[in-house]
Amino acid sequence: MAEPVRARSDAAAELRVDGARLLDRLTDLAAVGAIDGGGVCRLALTEHDRDAREVVVAWMHDLGLDVHIDAIGNVIATRGGRRPDLAPVMCGSHIDSVRTGGKYDGTFGVLAGLEVIETLERAGISTDRAIAVAFFTDEEGARFPPDMLGSLVYAGGLDVETALDTIGIDGARLGDELARIGYGGPFPCPGPPPHAFVEVHVEQGPVLEAAGITIGAVTSVQGISWQEISVTGQSNHAGTTPMSMRHDAGHAAARIAVAVREVIAAVGRHQVGTVGSLRLQPDLVNVVAGRATLTVDLRNTDEAELRRAEELLADAVATIASDEHVEIESRSTARFEPVEFDERVIALVDDTARTLGYSVRRMPSGAGHDAQMLARVCPTGMIFVPSHKGLSHNVAEHTDPADLEAGANVLLHTLLALSTESALLDDADRGAPAQIGERES
Amino acid sequence: MAEPVRARSDAAAELRVDGARLLDRLTDLAAVGAIDGGGVCRLALTEHDRDAREVVVAWMHDLGLDVHIDAIGNVIATRGGRRPDLAPVMCGSHIDSVRTGGKYDGTFGVLAGLEVIETLERAGISTDRAIAVAFFTDEEGARFPPDMLGSLVYAGGLDVETALDTIGIDGARLGDELARIGYGGPFPCPGPPPHAFVEVHVEQGPVLEAAGITIGAVTSVQGISWQEISVTGQSNHAGTTPMSMRHDAGHAAARIAVAVREVIAAVGRHQVGTVGSLRLQPDLVNVVAGRATLTVDLRNTDEAELRRAEELLADAVATIASDEHVEIESRSTARFEPVEFDERVIALVDDTARTLGYSVRRMPSGAGHDAQMLARVCPTGMIFVPSHKGLSHNVAEHTDPADLEAGANVLLHTLLALSTESALLDDADRGAPAQIGERES
Repeated sequence: MAEPVRARSDAAAELRVDGARLLDRLTDLAAVGAIDGGGVCRLALTEHDRDAREVVVAWMHDLGLDVHIDAIGNVIATRGGRRPDLAPVMCGSHIDSVRTGGKYDGTFGVLAGLEVIETLERAGISTDRAIAVAFFTDEEGARFPPDMLGSLVYAGGLDVETALDTIGIDGARLGDELARIGYGGPFPCPGPPPHAFVEVHVEQGPVLEAAGITIGAVTSVQGISWQEISVTGQSNHAGTTPMSMRHDAGHAAARIAVAVREVIAAVGRHQVGTVGSLRLQPDLVNVVAGRATLTVDLRNTDEAELRRAEELLADAVATIASDEHVEIESRSTARFEPVEFDERVIALVDDTARTLGYSVRRMPSGAGHDAQMLARVCPTGMIFVPSHKGLSHNVAEHTDPADLEAGANVLLHTLLALSTESALLDDADRGAPAQIGERES
Repeated sequence: MAEPVRARSDAAAELRVDGARLLDRLTDLAAVGAIDGGGVCRLALTEHDRDAREVVVAWMHDLGLDVHIDAIGNVIATRGGRRPDLAPVMCGSHIDSVRTGGKYDGTFGVLAGLEVIETLERAGISTDRAIAVAFFTDEEGARFPPDMLGSLVYAGGLDVETALDTIGIDGARLGDELARIGYGGPFPCPGPPPHAFVEVHVEQGPVLEAAGITIGAVTSVQGISWQEISVTGQSNHAGTTPMSMRHDAGHAAARIAVAVREVIAAVGRHQVGTVGSLRLQPDLVNVVAGRATLTVDLRNTDEAELRRAEELLADAVATIASDEHVEIESRSTARFEPVEFDERVIALVDDTARTLGYSVRRMPSGAGHDAQMLARVCPTGMIFVPSHKGLSHNVAEHTDPADLEAGANVLLHTLLALSTESALLDDADRGAPAQIGERES
């Protein structure tokens, strides 16, 4: 039986973050790439991403942190500990966004980390282990698939040369764009495994708010399967081509989108799926589409069910190709198995939240996060706070300031507990981190 | 019983167009806005449309024609007749294209008209009535819906001020674009009704080629119903939003596209329908679409069946809106009833083709044409030539040179017959043109 890591009971136990200061930084960062409705558009490695990086790196320097930029553009800022021989404890998330992103998705995890650092600095509290705050490149994958690319490279799941050759949806090469904005750094990938990793993030779903609970102790992350499906038919006149002689790529694409829902129904309640992008060529009212491209996003907490969904979809696509006399090609653009977080870190988050007086629930994550990549190389956990109406990837994304403060306080005390020399080392199960490191996606 | 208009039997009966000269002009014009694969992109009132207008107007001047440009940008070039008191006979078509258009769609009807003029000039043949060659603005409607806009305005079916205020798919105002390219002319709309109108055009369908027939004597044009359907749902995270809580505009749009096919099957074999354009917002792999816009193009030679298709689609859309918890708005962007051409002109085309030794078949048109607008104000007919594989609105659109020459010869002799003082006046059925003029869409 593992010895649980306990929240500290010394003077530091009374320590709390400054919620107003945290909110000020979040508000300042949200001004970079701001769009109508209160959201942000900071697609990875665009000017807006660069501007946001400059703002956060300046804050890191203001806090006296040692800032490293690695070859894929991940930025890791470290506050030294009393024991430089020990691996640091790391927190962090991302600052890129989808095209219509909210202001807390990712940024909260990074700026809560800086708030923890500033709180420790002002209280004059040192830790055994260094504490690092990271933001990872291209977490959203909205411009350069797959998502969580920077943390995947950090954790050694993708070699940096391949990642730099990624072509974005706008035809740009990731490495070129990284160099253009000045964020191709000298530090090698994969990066050094931290002692542990904790990411605080908005839930992006409706569960915590609906249950009236402040903190989610995240147990796992859904597996993700992304496909890009290309349909080739024949462009022709919409009035003169008999229905029986058509090779309508647009109609085939619409049938695939409808089939995705049928697959979800067949697999059952843990399965979700989305056709978020669908484009026709030439995309004109009076022309039968000759080409169509659509994306399918399938997610499940159970790997076997996710694989079944992929198989059922492939069967449906083959039937549609035959029915509609079109050619269809499917290409996997991202594939991650479901991830289970480290039970000791989950228990620490749960215990810390209770000690601080917050309501807490264990729950899986519906979204992908950088933490799932770090889970390959170190004990990892996540802290969720409620999302208003569950809205995410939406300019109206919102979390109450009190909940942001609560999440940052849980992060503070979780990091304090993990930054002791003995944390995660005093249990009998020393094999666990190595097993995690062996997991392949 | 109406006296048929007969092909002339005098010396002019031996006259033939110069197929090589016609093909040269077609080839030269196809170089304007040329795109890969042998097609053209000359969306209405773009620079490429302007450049094509300049080329054709120069040819018109070279032929000594009197060129008029009207307030909607229609260009009418006239070769005078012996009897200036009589209304001219008109032929013509259009020179704008869809985004991936072929090189003969529209241009053939205009340049065959110029070839007829040059043939008459070189042979020194004068006619009682003047012969006019027109090209009408924005026939395709691919940039500024509805299609056949210029000829609709010419025929008095749409007032010119309303037409000039049309907003294109790129947000541009038609009147501004017309002024920008220098084609807002001084002649008023509606224009003077010609004595008769004949349009020669590629079939854009597979019927003539499949039957091995050279000339189609077009009897009617399918009715057209265009709708733009806008779906408003809620943009949200593709991983964290339970399927039951989604308002997925993209999924609703795909269901509508599938429903269009079900409507077509229910209405029966004369009904065709196409979803040629479908766009999602924000159109990203991991975001449930908050908005979707799609177009529906429904066509039928029978007005009652076309109306039934519209009603069935409206019912399906209402069901989908309810099922998917989204709001759906449908807007009619074009609506034309089926058009029957003038039996005397149809018979003249049929007779002329036979006299010239070409195989001929009476047939309806699956596509909309400027001729259907002119049919509101004068006796009208059309001449079709085969389209290779029925391809149209496609860069691979092709018609054999011999068929182009045949179509131009039928146009020549049809126009010669109609340009006599007595043509269409020596029958008992003088009420017919007035009845056609009263038709409303």
